[in-house]
Amino acid sequence: MKLLVVNPNTTASMTHKIGLAAQRCASPGTEVLATNPSQGPVSIEGYFDEALCLPGLLQEMARHPDADATVIACFDDTGLDAARCLSSRPVIGIGEAAYKMAAMVSNKFSVVTTLSRSVPALEHNLARYGLSHMCVKVRASDVPVLELESPHSCARDLIRAEIAAAISQDKAEAIVLGCAGMADLAQSLSEEFGVPVLDGVACAVALAEAMVRVGVKTSKVGGYAPPPAIKMPAAWGIQPT
Amino acid sequence: MKLLVVNPNTTASMTHKIGLAAQRCASPGTEVLATNPSQGPVSIEGYFDEALCLPGLLQEMARHPDADATVIACFDDTGLDAARCLSSRPVIGIGEAAYKMAAMVSNKFSVVTTLSRSVPALEHNLARYGLSHMCVKVRASDVPVLELESPHSCARDLIRAEIAAAISQDKAEAIVLGCAGMADLAQSLSEEFGVPVLDGVACAVALAEAMVRVGVKTSKVGGYAPPPAIKMPAAWGIQPT
Amino acid sequence: MKLLVVNPNTTASMTHKIGLAAQRCASPGTEVLATNPSQGPVSIEGYFDEALCLPGLLQEMARHPDADATVIACFDDTGLDAARCLSSRPVIGIGEAAYKMAAMVSNKFSVVTTLSRSVPALEHNLARYGLSHMCVKVRASDVPVLELESPHSCARDLIRAEIAAAISQDKAEAIVLGCAGMADLAQSLSEEFGVPVLDGVACAVALAEAMVRVGVKTSKVGGYAPPPAIKMPAAWGIQPT
Amino acid sequence: MKLLVVNPNTTASMTHKIGLAAQRCASPGTEVLATNPSQGPVSIEGYFDEALCLPGLLQEMARHPDADATVIACFDDTGLDAARCLSSRPVIGIGEAAYKMAAMVSNKFSVVTTLSRSVPALEHNLARYGLSHMCVKVRASDVPVLELESPHSCARDLIRAEIAAAISQDKAEAIVLGCAGMADLAQSLSEEFGVPVLDGVACAVALAEAMVRVGVKTSKVGGYAPPPAIKMPAAWGIQPT
Amino acid sequence: MKLLVVNPNTTASMTHKIGLAAQRCASPGTEVLATNPSQGPVSIEGYFDEALCLPGLLQEMARHPDADATVIACFDDTGLDAARCLSSRPVIGIGEAAYKMAAMVSNKFSVVTTLSRSVPALEHNLARYGLSHMCVKVRASDVPVLELESPHSCARDLIRAEIAAAISQDKAEAIVLGCAGMADLAQSLSEEFGVPVLDGVACAVALAEAMVRVGVKTSKVGGYAPPPAIKMPAAWGIQPT
Amino acid sequence: MKLLVVNPNTTASMTHKIGLAAQRCASPGTEVLATNPSQGPVSIEGYFDEALCLPGLLQEMARHPDADATVIACFDDTGLDAARCLSSRPVIGIGEAAYKMAAMVSNKFSVVTTLSRSVPALEHNLARYGLSHMCVKVRASDVPVLELESPHSCARDLIRAEIAAAISQDKAEAIVLGCAGMADLAQSLSEEFGVPVLDGVACAVALAEAMVRVGVKTSKVGGYAPPPAIKMPAAWGIQPT
Repeated sequence: MKLLVVNPNTTASMTHKIGLAAQRCASPGTEVLATNPSQGPVSIEGYFDEALCLPGLLQEMARHPDADATVIACFDDTGLDAARCLSSRPVIGIGEAAYKMAAMVSNKFSVVTTLSRSVPALEHNLARYGLSHMCVKVRASDVPVLELESPHSCARDLIRAEIAAAISQDKAEAIVLGCAGMADLAQSLSEEFGVPVLDGVACAVALAEAMVRVGVKTSKVGGYAPPPAIKMPAAWGIQPT
Repeated sequence: MKLLVVNPNTTASMTHKIGLAAQRCASPGTEVLATNPSQGPVSIEGYFDEALCLPGLLQEMARHPDADATVIACFDDTGLDAARCLSSRPVIGIGEAAYKMAAMVSNKFSVVTTLSRSVPALEHNLARYGLSHMCVKVRASDVPVLELESPHSCARDLIRAEIAAAISQDKAEAIVLGCAGMADLAQSLSEEFGVPVLDGVACAVALAEAMVRVGVKTSKVGGYAPPPAIKMPAAWGIQPT
Repeated sequence: MKLLVVNPNTTASMTHKIGLAAQRCASPGTEVLATNPSQGPVSIEGYFDEALCLPGLLQEMARHPDADATVIACFDDTGLDAARCLSSRPVIGIGEAAYKMAAMVSNKFSVVTTLSRSVPALEHNLARYGLSHMCVKVRASDVPVLELESPHSCARDLIRAEIAAAISQDKAEAIVLGCAGMADLAQSLSEEFGVPVLDGVACAVALAEAMVRVGVKTSKVGGYAPPPAIKMPAAWGIQPT
Repeated sequence: MKLLVVNPNTTASMTHKIGLAAQRCASPGTEVLATNPSQGPVSIEGYFDEALCLPGLLQEMARHPDADATVIACFDDTGLDAARCLSSRPVIGIGEAAYKMAAMVSNKFSVVTTLSRSVPALEHNLARYGLSHMCVKVRASDVPVLELESPHSCARDLIRAEIAAAISQDKAEAIVLGCAGMADLAQSLSEEFGVPVLDGVACAVALAEAMVRVGVKTSKVGGYAPPPAIKMPAAWGIQPT
Repeated sequence: MKLLVVNPNTTASMTHKIGLAAQRCASPGTEVLATNPSQGPVSIEGYFDEALCLPGLLQEMARHPDADATVIACFDDTGLDAARCLSSRPVIGIGEAAYKMAAMVSNKFSVVTTLSRSVPALEHNLARYGLSHMCVKVRASDVPVLELESPHSCARDLIRAEIAAAISQDKAEAIVLGCAGMADLAQSLSEEFGVPVLDGVACAVALAEAMVRVGVKTSKVGGYAPPPAIKMPAAWGIQPT
Repeated sequence: MKLLVVNPNTTASMTHKIGLAAQRCASPGTEVLATNPSQGPVSIEGYFDEALCLPGLLQEMARHPDADATVIACFDDTGLDAARCLSSRPVIGIGEAAYKMAAMVSNKFSVVTTLSRSVPALEHNLARYGLSHMCVKVRASDVPVLELESPHSCARDLIRAEIAAAISQDKAEAIVLGCAGMADLAQSLSEEFGVPVLDGVACAVALAEAMVRVGVKTSKVGGYAPPPAIKMPAAWGIQPT
C-alpha cells in the first residue's frame, strides 16, 4: 500500500518530521511518501494561509496518482473537500482523524493548538464534523508552528500547561494535539498526564490504511464528483486520478 | 464610496453582467468596480473550483487597497474568511448576503442553484451561518453556470420549475437564487411568483454599502488578524490593506 | 426614502436620542421618523414589558402606512413577527441587525446589555436567528435602561468593564451593545477597545435602507400573511399596509 | 386546588368547550375556572393575533391572583414568558404540555394544526423547547379555528386526512392536535388510528395539577423576575401575584 | 390508580426512602408500589451499572403488569426505552421528569448529581431530550450514592456548595437534584436558596399520575412496538403487558 | 494483534458469518476471535433486545481480557459505553465505525437497516455521534435480521430497492448497511450502484486495528472510569481488564 502524506506548507524539516511520525505507525507493508509543495506559505496559521496553500497541495496530490490514499497533514484540514474531488481514493485530514478517534475513546476532549488566530478555523471544522458537542474547548498555547521545530523552544512547557488546564478545568477525558508539528509529543504526554493524547498524523495514517483495507472509496456522485477537464488547465498541472 | 466586486472566475462576460447588477442597486455616490482574476477556473462549480480560484481572488483584492468594501461575487462565498484576513474593511459574500436578507423577510426559504455538485458546499455554508433551520431545501436546476450566459438556453425555464416546486412542496416563503449569473432574473421572477426572489449580488452590494455607512470594520483580533508579512511573498503580490 | 423608527417604550427622551443616532447613519435622501407609543411601559426590560408594549408598537406602525421600511428600536426585537404581518415592506429589529452585522466582521462576539432579567430573552432571539454558536456570552452590565438617559450615571464605566471582560475572557472578536439607549457609545468604545463595537440602531437603519434599495419585500405567503380584517377592530386602529 | 384556564381569544363558545375538556381530566378536588378576555382577537391564528391578545390575557391572569396554577389555552403558547413573570405559581402552555407528553410516549410525533399561517409559530416553539428533532412535521389541515365550533363543518375529515398522512408518510408514532378547539376529538381519533392522539388542554391541566402537587414554583430569579410596579400602570389593571 | 416505582439498584433502604417520597406527593387515591430487583448493582453510578441493572429492572416491571404507570427511579433514566417496549402504559424516568418540569419554571437550570463518572450519561440524556440548551451545567458533588443513606455524612454540605455555585456562577434559575437518593432534600434546599429545587422522584410520580389521568398511552407503533414472544424466554420471566 | 468481535445475539450462524467478514478485511498478523453470548435474544431488533443482551455481551468481553481491541458487532452499538468502562483498550461499535467512514467519503449518506422498530435507536445513535446532519434518512427494508441468514429469502431485493431510493430520492452519496448480517453484501452492492456501500463489520475491524496501531487507549478518567469491584459480583463473572 502506498500512502501519500502531503504537508501543505513549504517547510521541509516539518515534512521530514511528519514523515517519520507517519512511518512509525504504518503497517509493515505500507510505503509512506511525505511531501510538500515548493511554493506557498511556510506554515499554516489561520484562514489566509489555508487559502494560499491550496494550489500547491492539489498539485502534490496530482503528482502522485498512484497513491492508495492521501493524508492532508495540516491540522486545519485545509483543502479536504477539493482534494476529495480529485481522487476516488480516500483522502483524510489529520484534524478530522484525531477528532474522530478521540470521540471513540472519551466522552469529551479538548484541543491544544498553536496560535489564537487558528482557533476559529478549528472550531468551524469541529462544527462541520458534528463534534462541537464533544470538544469542550480549543486552547491556543501561543506557540507559533515553526517554533515547534526549534530544539530550544519552550513550546513543550506551554503545551503541557494547556493540557493540565484542559484536564482540570474542562474535565476533558482526552487531549487532541492541534498541529502536525506536535506529532512527536503525543506518547510522552499521554504517559505524563494519564489520559489519551492524540496526534493527528498517526491517527490519519492508521485511518487511511484502514479505509484502503476495507476497500471504501470516495463517492464520485454529488459534491465530490470529478471536475470537468476544462477546470484543470495545463498551467496548474492538476489532473484527477 | 468605492465598492470592489470580485467575480472569482475568469469569465469576463459574467463579470460585466454582475457589474451592471451591482451598479443598478448601488446608491448614487457609490462607484462599483467589478473585476475578475486573469487566471483560474472559468466558473465555480463545487469544492475544486472554489479552491483553485483563491489566489486569483485574493490578488484582485490586494490590487485594490482603496476599496471601502469588497463583495465576493460567487454564491459559494469562497475565500470569504481568507479575504477578511486581508483587510479591515467589510468583506461580504453574495450567498451570505442573500441568505441573511431572506431570513428577515420570510420564515423559511429555498435556494435554487445550478448543478447538484454545488449543493453540499451551499449546505455547509448555511450550517456555518446558522441558517440551516430556515432553508428548507437547496435545489439544483441542473443549469451549468456558463449556460446562464447564453441567450438561447432553457435555463430560465428550469429555474422557474424549481421555484414552483419550492413554493408548493417546500412551503418556501421566499426564494434565493444561488448563482451570481442569475442576477438579472430576480425581479421578474419575484413578480411572476408573488414571493420575494433574492439575488445575492444586489443583496451584497446594498449590505456592503450599509456596513460602510455604519462604519463597522472587520475585527483584526482573533481569526481575522492580518497574516504576518512573511506569509505574502512578492510572487503572490498580495498585501493586506 | 422614508424610514419609520419605532421605540416601543414611552420614554420620549430615549426616542429623541434614537432618532439622532438613526439620522446620523442614514443616507442623504433618507427621512427618519422616530416615534413611540403614547401608552405602555416606560422601558422594555424582559418578557413582561415586551408583551405589554405590543399594541402600542403596532399602532405606531399602522399610523405610518407610507413608510418604506420600519425599524423596531428595542434590542429585544419585540413584536418583530407581528409587525411583519402588518406590512409588505421590510421590518427590522435592532438586535437582529446588530447580530447579523457582527457575524460578518468577526468569528464570535459577545453582547453587553442592561439587566440580567433581559438576558434570557436575548439568548432566545440569538437561538432563533441561528447565531447562538457565534455569540459567546450575553453579559448584563446591571445598568437599568433609563439610567442610560442620566448624565451623571456610572453606566459607561459598567459597560466598559463588561466589554473588557468579553475581550479577555470570552475571546470575543466584536461587541454588540444590547440596548437602544447605548446608541451614542458605539464609536468611542470601538476606538477605545480596538474591536468593532456595534450599535443596533445604526445597523438596523442602514440595513433597512439596503433592503429598500434592493427592493426586497416581506413575504406575504405563510407566517407573515396579512391578518384578515376581522382581527383588527376599529378600537385598535391597526390596519395592514 | 384552583386552576385558571385562560383562552386568550374572545370567543366564549370556545372557552366553554375548553373548560369542559379541562374539567373532564382534572382531579376530583380541582376547581377549573375557564375564562377569556373581553377585548382582543376572536381567534389566534399566527403572530399578529398572538401579539394583540397579550394585554387581555395578562389581565385575566391578574384578575385571578388566587389560582394555584394557570393554563394558557392557545396552542401557540402565546404570552407564556410574560405570564410567568406575573406569578410565582406554575404557568403552562397547552402546546408545550402536549409536546412534552408526546415526547414521553413516542420517538417522534407530528402536529396537526389549523391554518398554514400558524405553522412557523409552532415550529419556533418546538425549536425553543428543544423538540424539533422529535417532531417530524407540523401539518396544516386548513381548518380555520372558528370552523371547529361549527357542527356542520368538514373539519374532522380534514384533520383525519392529515393524521393518516402523518402516520404513513412521517412515520409519526403519536399525533398532537394543534388547536385548543380540537380538545374534544383526541380520544376518538386515538381509538380510530391506534396511536396516541394528544390534546393540549388535557395535557396542560394534568401537568399543572402535577406541578402544584409537587410544589414546584416558577423561578423568580433571572428572566421570570417580577416586573417593578412602575411597569404596571393602573390602566392595565395588572399586578403580579 | 396504581403506580409502580422501580429503583433499579438493589439497595432496599434507598427503595424505602424513594417510596416515601413518592407517596408524599401522590394523590389521595394513588397506591405507590416501590420495589427493586433482587440482583444487580447496589447503586447506579455511570454506564456500567446502568447496563447491568437492566434485566432486573425489566423483570420488576414484568412482575407488576397491573400497574397503571411505571416510574424508573434512577436519575440516569436507564432502561427507559426498553421499558417502554414492555408496556402500553406510561413509563417515566425521574431525570426526564425533573428536567421537563425545570424547563417550565425557569429559563435555565443546573443539575447537582453525585459522582463525576455519572456526568456524561446525564449530559447525553439532556441532549437526547433536547434540553442541553437549557441546562447550564451538570455538577458533580462527589458524594457517592450510598453515602446519601448515611446519617453522618457531609453529603448535604457538598450538595449545598454546588447549588450555591450554580446560582452565582451558572446563573441557574432552578436546580435539579441528580440522584433518587436526594429525594428528601428538595423542599428545604428550595427554601434555603430561594430558587426552585426539583427532585425527580416527586416530579415523575406527579407526571405519571397526570399522564394516566389524561389517558395518554405509550405508542405501540415504531420504536416502542412490543417485542415478539421469542425474545422473552421463560428464563427471563419478562412478558409485555 | 488479537481482535475480539462480539455478536451480542445468540445466533451462532450469524456469528460465523460476521467472523468471516471480519477476518477478510483484517491485516495478515491479526487474529480475529468472533464470539456470542450463550444466553440472551436471538437477534437485536430495537430497544428491548438491546437491553437484554447486555449482561451476555459484557461477560463475553470479560472472558477475553487479552484482546487488544473489541468490536461490538451489532449495528445498534448496544452496550458501547458500558463496554468502554470495562477495558482500557479500544471498543468500537459497527454502526459508529460505518457512519464515521461514510462521513469521510461522502457529503451525505443514507442507512438501510432491517425493521422499522430499529430506526429510532439508530437515529438516536447518529444524533449522539453528531452525524444527524450527514445522514439523510434511515430506511427500513422490512427484512427481519434472521431472514438474512436464509438462502432463499428475498432480502437482497428489498435492500436493493431501498438503496435505489436512497440514491435517487435522498441524493445520498454513500450507503451504510444497517445490520451485521448484511456484511457479505457490501462489495457487490457497491459495484452495482456505483456509490460506496459500507458494511459496519469491515469498517469496525479496520478501525480497531488502526487504533491499536496508533496506540490510542480508552480514557479511564470521567465517564469510562472502571467501575469499583463491588459492582461486579462473582455471579456476573465480569471483571475490568
